Amino acid sequence: MAKKNLIVGQSGGPTAVINSSLYGVVSEGLSHPDTIEHVYGMVNGIEGFLNDCILDFEEALPGEDLNGLKSTPGAYLGSCRYKLPESLEDPVYPALFKKFEELNIGWFFYIGGNDSMDTVSKLSRYAEHIGSSIRVIGEPKTIDNDLVHTDHTPGFGSAAKYVASTVREITTDANVYEKKSVTIIEIMGRHAGWLTAASALARKYDGDNPLFIYLPEVAFDQDVFLKDLEKAFEKNCNLIVCVSEGIHDADGTFICEYDSSVGTDTFGHKMLAGCGKYLENLVRSRLGVKARSVELNVSQRCSASLISATDQKEAITAGKFGVQAALNGETGKMVSFIRQTDSEGNYQMVCGLEDVNAICNEEKTVPLTWITSDGHDVTEDFIRYARPLIQGNIEVPLGEDGLPKFVYRK
Amino acid sequence: MAKKNLIVGQSGGPTAVINSSLYGVVSEGLSHPDTIEHVYGMVNGIEGFLNDCILDFEEALPGEDLNGLKSTPGAYLGSCRYKLPESLEDPVYPALFKKFEELNIGWFFYIGGNDSMDTVSKLSRYAEHIGSSIRVIGEPKTIDNDLVHTDHTPGFGSAAKYVASTVREITTDANVYEKKSVTIIEIMGRHAGWLTAASALARKYDGDNPLFIYLPEVAFDQDVFLKDLEKAFEKNCNLIVCVSEGIHDADGTFICEYDSSVGTDTFGHKMLAGCGKYLENLVRSRLGVKARSVELNVSQRCSASLISATDQKEAITAGKFGVQAALNGETGKMVSFIRQTDSEGNYQMVCGLEDVNAICNEEKTVPLTWITSDGHDVTEDFIRYARPLIQGNIEVPLGEDGLPKFVYRK
Repeated sequence: MAKKNLIVGQSGGPTAVINSSLYGVVSEGLSHPDTIEHVYGMVNGIEGFLNDCILDFEEALPGEDLNGLKSTPGAYLGSCRYKLPESLEDPVYPALFKKFEELNIGWFFYIGGNDSMDTVSKLSRYAEHIGSSIRVIGEPKTIDNDLVHTDHTPGFGSAAKYVASTVREITTDANVYEKKSVTIIEIMGRHAGWLTAASALARKYDGDNPLFIYLPEVAFDQDVFLKDLEKAFEKNCNLIVCVSEGIHDADGTFICEYDSSVGTDTFGHKMLAGCGKYLENLVRSRLGVKARSVELNVSQRCSASLISATDQKEAITAGKFGVQAALNGETGKMVSFIRQTDSEGNYQMVCGLEDVNAICNEEKTVPLTWITSDGHDVTEDFIRYARPLIQGNIEVPLGEDGLPKFVYRK
Repeated sequence: MAKKNLIVGQSGGPTAVINSSLYGVVSEGLSHPDTIEHVYGMVNGIEGFLNDCILDFEEALPGEDLNGLKSTPGAYLGSCRYKLPESLEDPVYPALFKKFEELNIGWFFYIGGNDSMDTVSKLSRYAEHIGSSIRVIGEPKTIDNDLVHTDHTPGFGSAAKYVASTVREITTDANVYEKKSVTIIEIMGRHAGWLTAASALARKYDGDNPLFIYLPEVAFDQDVFLKDLEKAFEKNCNLIVCVSEGIHDADGTFICEYDSSVGTDTFGHKMLAGCGKYLENLVRSRLGVKARSVELNVSQRCSASLISATDQKEAITAGKFGVQAALNGETGKMVSFIRQTDSEGNYQMVCGLEDVNAICNEEKTVPLTWITSDGHDVTEDFIRYARPLIQGNIEVPLGEDGLPKFVYRK
């Protein structure tokens, strides 16, 4: 069989381990020299590919340099937010497949979230439509953990570890003064509260902060919230409140919209800003106590020092598994995670394949049964689910300057 | 000589290594059992001490537990912002010294910044005034690095390492899209720009981000700023701008005051909020490009995973040195750092003692000669000064839950 080339791209928002997934795909691709001639990367996803921006990994990251991907946050290849047209009759599809043919592409990998799986779905359907032999596989990534048909998603474990560690640190910081205070911590997650729920992992003992955790899965009532804080002050001095950026009231109005302007991004998502700041001001003016807010912001998805070793390992495994599946002829699939327990009852994860058409444009939220009836905490079921995913520290190689050494495109 | 007791307190805002200084004082104190009977801690500083809140370290953190202080951020003993009266005739002084006598205190240590050194100054002067033999020593700490008569301050190195690492990570995150963007990173420091300057350490190569660094030491002009950004866009796609929270215009008006309300804290400092958010909105509306802002917030002073090994070691050394000095009869002094180079030209630090009266209420800012003439960068002199202070990672012990194990008061 004549050799063909493999191409891989990254799309959507980066995570701390999206480059580990890339490492998995590329290293597995390079380990099949009898079948795979070149391993190419699309620079800035499908959008960059349309502009002929590609690189060859053996030139860009030769030898040991490839290992640098494992501890480099951000998207090494660059990313895009480009939505392919709904109609497979659109001229972009033949244009894309002409380029695939010119580059002798046999295998196409796209690492991303829901929107990227939409791209995988369309390309695999078009390939089938025209009888192309190109295999198209999706590699999951999202800190939001909102992909369906998979136990969890690469990127979530590291983001969850960042949230849990940082909330624990902020708690030590908040506890220094003997004066009533409220610290609002705003955590990423527009519609799914997985990351905010991970703040529960920060508790060092029963009754420790964060005392309140609000997810977008249940309606937020600011009057009940203020009453709950007042009650908590009867026993506690410093209250930590973790809120998802996407909390909303019973009418569906986002709390951040109470006080700030919004817009929409390319995919029609609402752009939210500032429920933490809103609640800080609310608490200060209504309860008359010291209040501050902390937005964890992009460090949630790009902290190298808090990459979860489990998450990194799983991202690499998923990358490799996808290549093996494509070589076996699979297409139109996303690599999924299936949770198992070993003979000693310990967590282990195995990869599976799911029809990408059943995944794209769907969203998995935190089960309501994992949220306590008072609406401001998560249950032990969530803790048992999330705890294994944040285990293990990685060693980040340091450069001569004493800081983490990252790889980047020259 | 009859044995006496040692007491130590923490004051002001915490740092990542204020507990390492505490470890130094306590471990050194416990190593002199022939002279020092008990090593006590004031809970919540001098304010808590006035309310008889103290603990005995041999009970609170027995044996190996004491080591936990070295990687626990926040202030283990709790803190306060309590300013002793200016007049030594105030009844609080005899009240304090009566308590010292009842507790058989021979040595008093206070770990803090400028305001805490004010407390050390007043207590040592009052002790001299009444002929008390109590030795009063200040242990420096502040992430702001603004204490005079010392090369640098424990706490700065770890905060600088957090800033440099995080700015490098945010740069990888910002670089993923091929679309003009400006990311404003707001860094702590009201009047002194040391921490913001540390963002320059993040650069991986000449011309790397952050492309603009604004310190409070020079006036900020928003029209020049916008023109500089436009010029930078000719060669760059994603611009990272690091700003001190305290940047102000030529008239002395804080940029955050352009758009937000302010108040004052106990010591009469202005409470600032939001120059990053202000500049984000300015850039978006005036340049029409994608803009976001990230406030690094309290993680700058409480990140355990990014504690600088150099900073930790120096904080411990300073703590021990202070106890040795007090045992030698020194009083009214602050432990200082003197920079030296060893025979191979490498950085090394030795401790000294400075008159605390010359330190309290003074503020050391970044030398103007270390700021480039265009006002938006720092020179190699600063890099050479700061680079040694961020060297080395520490290993943070993990608990069974997979997260950093912190010690705390039960």
